[in-house]
Amino acid sequence: MKSYRKELVINYPKRRGFVNITKDVILALKESNIKEGMLLCNAMHITSSVFINDDESGLHKDFDIWLEKLAPEKPYSMYNHNGYEDNADAHLKRTIMGREVIVAITNGSLDFGPWEQIFYGEFDGLRNKRILIKIIGE
Amino acid sequence: MKSYRKELVINYPKRRGFVNITKDVILALKESNIKEGMLLCNAMHITSSVFINDDESGLHKDFDIWLEKLAPEKPYSMYNHNGYEDNADAHLKRTIMGREVIVAITNGSLDFGPWEQIFYGEFDGLRNKRILIKIIGE
Amino acid sequence: MKSYRKELVINYPKRRGFVNITKDVILALKESNIKEGMLLCNAMHITSSVFINDDESGLHKDFDIWLEKLAPEKPYSMYNHNGYEDNADAHLKRTIMGREVIVAITNGSLDFGPWEQIFYGEFDGLRNKRILIKIIGE
Repeated sequence: MKSYRKELVINYPKRRGFVNITKDVILALKESNIKEGMLLCNAMHITSSVFINDDESGLHKDFDIWLEKLAPEKPYSMYNHNGYEDNADAHLKRTIMGREVIVAITNGSLDFGPWEQIFYGEFDGLRNKRILIKIIGE
Repeated sequence: MKSYRKELVINYPKRRGFVNITKDVILALKESNIKEGMLLCNAMHITSSVFINDDESGLHKDFDIWLEKLAPEKPYSMYNHNGYEDNADAHLKRTIMGREVIVAITNGSLDFGPWEQIFYGEFDGLRNKRILIKIIGE
Repeated sequence: MKSYRKELVINYPKRRGFVNITKDVILALKESNIKEGMLLCNAMHITSSVFINDDESGLHKDFDIWLEKLAPEKPYSMYNHNGYEDNADAHLKRTIMGREVIVAITNGSLDFGPWEQIFYGEFDGLRNKRILIKIIGE
């Protein structure tokens, strides 16, 4: 069994947003030289997500509006966590969107359906955040 | 390390619904002849889910009502994505229910608790959709 | 490829709550003697979760309030599932929080960011519930 590990770093210039990291993940897979196996990609921070969906800007706007409805940023005082922090909403938003994805590796490629793309979801940005890629296989 | 890959195809006859795919996944596991490892099962489409829960029709009705409350199908005009599509709600519903499950393989079986069953969740049906099963192990 | 399997049992003294199981998972990893690979940790029950977030009591209170808003326990009569049961809300809450986590194993350790901790989320407690840990690698 072979394994490969890589970190990505993203400093998103706003509190919230989505970044397509599919190309970075494909690059890591090429570097690993693993042809058959599984790839884990996860946010290393608990106010960020890694998820798979469509690369369509209208949909991303819908995600943002929807998450803000399900877990509003403000008023900060509505959250117990915000005695010390102002990012309780980011923990909740990340929970909806998920921490990680697992992708099958087949013939040296991400084994994806036609529209699957990997995104980093930032919910408490303006600082360096890390993403882990771990690949195991042969 | 051995690996095995299989696709399932589902053409669900309505926009939304749930299909128990546990038997299909068990069949793929038998075909793989893998006894110890991990099994990934994921929707290859971004308006569908694979998830684990109870095979109880009342609960499935509750899921449907609940998802429609959290991410209503209509009015279509409330979603930015729906300039080109009418399925923004399906992307959101699939996000709640999840894209994938990972199941431990032990002694050649799905290592499940007493009520765990694997379901395909369709949120934009009436056409062929694919599910990926990937198994790695020994 | 090596594999290791362990079950944890939790009998949570209330209907709902969160338990930090990170130390138990680290112990299982030590016992496995696996240095590189992936670790799956999942609830074996469909009214419980395993998830990764922050070990902060204010945040846990926020999670509880938020889940009760998104999927209220009562009135029981609002759920179809509750003809036989009174725990439909627990199935929905577990869906939001997730069934499982996958953690990269690197150099014999959980490959975590600074604040990542693994929690068991109970939504229908007062009885024995099981958690599965499965590790594969070398």
